[in-house]
Amino acid sequence: MESGDGFRALDEKSVVEYIKSAPALTARLGGGQLDGVEIREVGDGNLNFVYIVLGPAGSFVLKQALPYIRCVGESWPMTKERAYFEALALKEHGRLCPDHVPEVYHFDRSMSVIGMRYLEPPHIILRKGLIAGIEYPLLAEHMSEYMAKTLFFTSLLYHSTAEHRRAVAEFCGNLELCRLTEQVVFSDPYRVSHFNRWTSPYLDRDAEAVREDDALKIEVAGLKSMFCERAQALIHGDLHTGSIMVTSDSTQVIDPEFAFYGPMGFDIGAFLGNLILAYFSQDGHANEGNDRKAYKQWILRTIVETWDLFQKKFISLWDEHKDGKGEAYLISIYNKPELWISLQQKYLKDLFHDALGFGAAKMIRRIVGIAHVEDFESIADASKRASCERNALNCAKRLLKERRQFETVGQVISVIQEIQP
Amino acid sequence: MESGDGFRALDEKSVVEYIKSAPALTARLGGGQLDGVEIREVGDGNLNFVYIVLGPAGSFVLKQALPYIRCVGESWPMTKERAYFEALALKEHGRLCPDHVPEVYHFDRSMSVIGMRYLEPPHIILRKGLIAGIEYPLLAEHMSEYMAKTLFFTSLLYHSTAEHRRAVAEFCGNLELCRLTEQVVFSDPYRVSHFNRWTSPYLDRDAEAVREDDALKIEVAGLKSMFCERAQALIHGDLHTGSIMVTSDSTQVIDPEFAFYGPMGFDIGAFLGNLILAYFSQDGHANEGNDRKAYKQWILRTIVETWDLFQKKFISLWDEHKDGKGEAYLISIYNKPELWISLQQKYLKDLFHDALGFGAAKMIRRIVGIAHVEDFESIADASKRASCERNALNCAKRLLKERRQFETVGQVISVIQEIQP
Ligand SMILES: Nc1ncnc2c1ncn2[C@@H]1O[C@H](COP(=O)(O)OP(=O)(O)O)[C@@H](O)[C@H]1O
Ligand SMILES: Nc1ncnc2c1ncn2[C@@H]1O[C@H](COP(=O)(O)OP(=O)(O)O)[C@@H](O)[C@H]1O
Ligand SMILES: [Mg+2]
Ligand SMILES: [Mg+2]
Ligand SMILES: [Mg+2]
Ligand SMILES: [Mg+2]
Ligand SMILES: [Mg+2]
Repeated sequence: MESGDGFRALDEKSVVEYIKSAPALTARLGGGQLDGVEIREVGDGNLNFVYIVLGPAGSFVLKQALPYIRCVGESWPMTKERAYFEALALKEHGRLCPDHVPEVYHFDRSMSVIGMRYLEPPHIILRKGLIAGIEYPLLAEHMSEYMAKTLFFTSLLYHSTAEHRRAVAEFCGNLELCRLTEQVVFSDPYRVSHFNRWTSPYLDRDAEAVREDDALKIEVAGLKSMFCERAQALIHGDLHTGSIMVTSDSTQVIDPEFAFYGPMGFDIGAFLGNLILAYFSQDGHANEGNDRKAYKQWILRTIVETWDLFQKKFISLWDEHKDGKGEAYLISIYNKPELWISLQQKYLKDLFHDALGFGAAKMIRRIVGIAHVEDFESIADASKRASCERNALNCAKRLLKERRQFETVGQVISVIQEIQP
Repeated sequence: MESGDGFRALDEKSVVEYIKSAPALTARLGGGQLDGVEIREVGDGNLNFVYIVLGPAGSFVLKQALPYIRCVGESWPMTKERAYFEALALKEHGRLCPDHVPEVYHFDRSMSVIGMRYLEPPHIILRKGLIAGIEYPLLAEHMSEYMAKTLFFTSLLYHSTAEHRRAVAEFCGNLELCRLTEQVVFSDPYRVSHFNRWTSPYLDRDAEAVREDDALKIEVAGLKSMFCERAQALIHGDLHTGSIMVTSDSTQVIDPEFAFYGPMGFDIGAFLGNLILAYFSQDGHANEGNDRKAYKQWILRTIVETWDLFQKKFISLWDEHKDGKGEAYLISIYNKPELWISLQQKYLKDLFHDALGFGAAKMIRRIVGIAHVEDFESIADASKRASCERNALNCAKRLLKERRQFETVGQVISVIQEIQP
């Protein structure tokens, strides 16, 4: 089923032929014959197809984008050029933070196929680990590292304004994916839309209350504008706990197909907001053998450590490169130690507030919008699930509306614990 | 002196040959022979060459960008591609607001030449009219119209996000001109730079105080980030009173070579800030025949009317197009009249604060930065000039630092009058 542009949708069978035609891929498997190569489609994701390719002498993953959204079907078309931006972002973020981004081996634009490192077991999707109640002692360390490096080095604190504008222009091309976020994160949850769903009837009034919360909607308007207008850094664009694969000592960020130059707070908020969702889901996973109390504390500690480490690392990258080509804030202007520090503090305070706002918006959309999270979905008892979701929703509404009053991440933790101890 | 890329710098003589080779231009002069055609270079500007071409049967202006900044010389190279962006912006803004933008007849990218309507006498540069003390009763009406239309129709309030990102990407190419603004508006005035100058020795302490004002510099950092990162609308980028030609009943905006997708407040602030500069310069132009008191009142009225009319027009465009393709704020979300109105009020309040910040930054750079304004420069008595400039500088510092406390343009007028009645 080849279309005019050289594109054809792969399946487990045709993947073999495809690999044979791509020397970089055959080489990964040891070259030559592909006997004994095992191919398995594992895309649990919403949008794309992912094939694990295992040979006796090597392995990789092939990810292909089709010209529609997988979980919806051909009725929701979506450019397959998203694979181009995913490959671009994987390569750029991988260059900046190779420890936490899988290596790209191959990219084929006309086929929208990316070949990348297979994150072998025991790597699992972080969200699944959070549902299972597994602690990842290095998660905060690794994710703060990933976010500090990818965001700092693609911002005007490091880029010259000329290279920044060139990169911004390139990623403007990923507009269909941005548009999808605009709709499902910033619009649909706040209006009647047949895409929305929630744990009904329990949350009927809660969903309605979101749609009727004028103060909330005014704040969401500002966040949406910032998402659309502000080219602060090359963000991942979909940095929830389903885009992270982990073991006890490895943390790997996958799936940056929504990448573009946007507000840094959108990535930080996505990660922290999804940890908060995981926290609120824990009571639904508690059972006699495990009350999840200690695990909830670990999640809260991870939230605190992630932000604190992020701040520290971000500021030390900034200090290290203060005489570099970054033209935003010149050391010749901010020329006294106290002034330099207050400049950085203001930057990070604003970023913290952005992260809280975007994080909260991402939480809300997971409860009353189109795409839900397994953290809650896997709670079988609907009434129990609804009560966890309601707490998360109330927390998010408060964070979003009052975010400018928060000065420390500790205050965020207090609000979370106040709502659900 | 032709370079490899088909570019050659014109002069009054070679312009004739150039016109002969361009049918669109010959046609404007009535076609055929060019005998009796008069050519005069009038570029008073900082950057480019402008030739007025007058024939018995028609006229136009030719503007050419050379690959450097005219007033500095070849030692400050500057891409001649700026003419491409100027032509693009003239055409786009001209389409949106034909009454206040000269028609483009011709554009030659390899020569960086724009042919456009000659704004015939009695059109003069607004700044010169302000220095001469001439009232323009329609100025507020016209400029509010120009700004409301050009900014609204190129923002996400009207654009779909897809067309917005495409347009943003195109104008990212004008990065050298943006970079110039970043340096001369947001950086140099706040540090020691050999480009800076001021009325010395009178303002030596004032210039130093600007460089030592930490609160001011922290605020300027935020404005600079917004200038670099926020693609809110296609702004003119250099909308001072030297980029506007006027008669008593015509207002024409020229010279958008700095155009790009940036914050709307930068344009509004440039215009209002330059009117405030004109106000503070008036005492330096007062003489026995004319104390300029009435004229100062007219300037203040024009500031008030411009902002008030701008708000009104902008909101009515927004209301008119609320069911259009603009995806930023959907009427299905902001679905109650009070909510819609408070959304708009918040948008305009933020815009007002942005305009005050950028306007003030543009005032400051005209007093202690590289490029000064004729309003002050034409005050021969240096001590008198310095005292006008000091008042303007103090006003700007206050507007910039306290801008978020202003709720009405009337409060701005009070500050101006308090500083210099
Ligand atoms: N490099 C990889 N190594 C191992 N498994 C992967 C890799 N990339 C993706 N996967 C698996 O495929 C799933 C879907 O991948 P993802 O990139 O998130 O696709 P989608 O864009 O459709 O969400 C992931 O949840 C993960 O289980
Ligand atoms: N369309 C026009 N009609 C009449 N005069 C013009 C026109 N365009 C420019 N000029 C004159 O040329 C001068 C310089 O033009 P401008 O576009 O501002 O160039 P620069 O980019 O060098 O500042 C203006 O101040 C004005 O006097
Ligand atoms: Mg995914
Ligand atoms: Mg997914
Ligand atoms: Mg994905
Ligand atoms: Mg000019
Ligand atoms: Mg100019």
